Amino acid sequence: MKQIETVKEFDGWLTRYEHESKACNCTMTFSVYLPPQSKVKPVPSLYWLSGLTCTDDNFRVKAGAQRYAAEHGIALIIPDTSPRGENIPDNPEKYDLGKGAGFYINATQSPWNKNYQMYDYITKELPQLIENNFPVTDKKSISGHSMGGHGALICALKNPGLFQSVSAFAPICHPTKAPWGEGIFSEYLGMDKAAWNEYDTCRLIGDNVEKIELLVDQGTDDEFLKEQLMTQALQSMCEENDFPLKLTMREGYDHSYHFIATFIGEHIKYHANRLL
Amino acid sequence: MKQIETVKEFDGWLTRYEHESKACNCTMTFSVYLPPQSKVKPVPSLYWLSGLTCTDDNFRVKAGAQRYAAEHGIALIIPDTSPRGENIPDNPEKYDLGKGAGFYINATQSPWNKNYQMYDYITKELPQLIENNFPVTDKKSISGHSMGGHGALICALKNPGLFQSVSAFAPICHPTKAPWGEGIFSEYLGMDKAAWNEYDTCRLIGDNVEKIELLVDQGTDDEFLKEQLMTQALQSMCEENDFPLKLTMREGYDHSYHFIATFIGEHIKYHANRLL
Repeated sequence: MKQIETVKEFDGWLTRYEHESKACNCTMTFSVYLPPQSKVKPVPSLYWLSGLTCTDDNFRVKAGAQRYAAEHGIALIIPDTSPRGENIPDNPEKYDLGKGAGFYINATQSPWNKNYQMYDYITKELPQLIENNFPVTDKKSISGHSMGGHGALICALKNPGLFQSVSAFAPICHPTKAPWGEGIFSEYLGMDKAAWNEYDTCRLIGDNVEKIELLVDQGTDDEFLKEQLMTQALQSMCEENDFPLKLTMREGYDHSYHFIATFIGEHIKYHANRLL
Repeated sequence: MKQIETVKEFDGWLTRYEHESKACNCTMTFSVYLPPQSKVKPVPSLYWLSGLTCTDDNFRVKAGAQRYAAEHGIALIIPDTSPRGENIPDNPEKYDLGKGAGFYINATQSPWNKNYQMYDYITKELPQLIENNFPVTDKKSISGHSMGGHGALICALKNPGLFQSVSAFAPICHPTKAPWGEGIFSEYLGMDKAAWNEYDTCRLIGDNVEKIELLVDQGTDDEFLKEQLMTQALQSMCEENDFPLKLTMREGYDHSYHFIATFIGEHIKYHANRLL
């Protein structure tokens, strides 16, 4: 693990690292924000999964989350959204396939399967690395935006007990029925739809996974709401299955980081109440 | 005045505009954040002047200021850092001359003098435009970063009563003695050093301008501190002239927006106490 850069913020430190990932078979980058409280004793962590085209940089710079992390004494763990590097398969013509679009799943199809193992990376390799190397406890929660909201939901639903709590901003709720999901799943997982269902929040809820409350915020003026995100499907599925969903539709907000910045404080407080 | 884009944030609206500037003789861009309180009655404004290479976008995205503006009920006025456009003089090889480096002064030398009139733009044209077109009062304060910190200080010092309060993050305090200032002043103002002194905070204080408290934050790990910013000279000059300076050296902070994000809340609160 190699430190790339570090900067002081809200009396804590925001640091970027590189490491050789076994899961993804390449050098991966991530950022960690350690709040001032971590100088005195280990703190719990919040993992943040970013959306399509993002790196760890977007959330670091745009969300304003460090302020709240410092207030509550929570570390922020901010991974990249896909494997990276010259030899990593990609489709440079599509922003929603390949680099920047790992979708937090384990690819089974060539050429993707050698590196695109983001599900294992996020749920196994990265937490182990973090807990072995930083002043954090093993208590952790997870959140994310859009593709990363999908990632946060499936990682929590498929691993009962791994995360204390889960939340999402404008998540892709039903990827097996949405263009982004269909495009990526057919490439990474092939045509076996049963494999697709393993990474679809609505399907997982229908399959009676262990219950955990889902905190979800969604802007009503989000251009992707109906076709790609399908929040309505999540709401119906949770109602049908008596699954605990705390959904707030935010009047007039869009899909941008300005929306995230507005409500990230509420999400971090929600997680803090379950982590501390 | 033409609206380019608008996005909801903290229950207010962040909007970007273009307009034909008489002072700068070109199309200028600026952003305005209107807090939710402005729906009910006019609010005071805080002008933010950005640093070298920035546009209005950096502060919008990176500072986390909208949260505090919404909390206190203050509009944010975020101009660009220079004239822009195809026909605007520039030196593409130098980041610290031409576009992105207006320095908030009125150029007197060709080819700069036709457009680089940022001092008049900030102190006269823009406030008039803002007060004629938005739900704001005529009460305003000013702040900025680096080149924009210099800009905020000179605009307040040279116009007693125009701004209720002034603050700066890592300002260029003594540009007539610093490489950035010397490079720009010799190009924009020529070799008449008396003209330079008109835009130098330390000189202005030495010339007994009307007193106004200066709130300044400066990171101790700022790479530009000694050679370019010269905070020490500002401190000495204020002591010599019994000029009110509220300077805080921030241990371990650098020159980045992470430093600004950490303390922008304190600055906005300071201005709110003088504006409301």
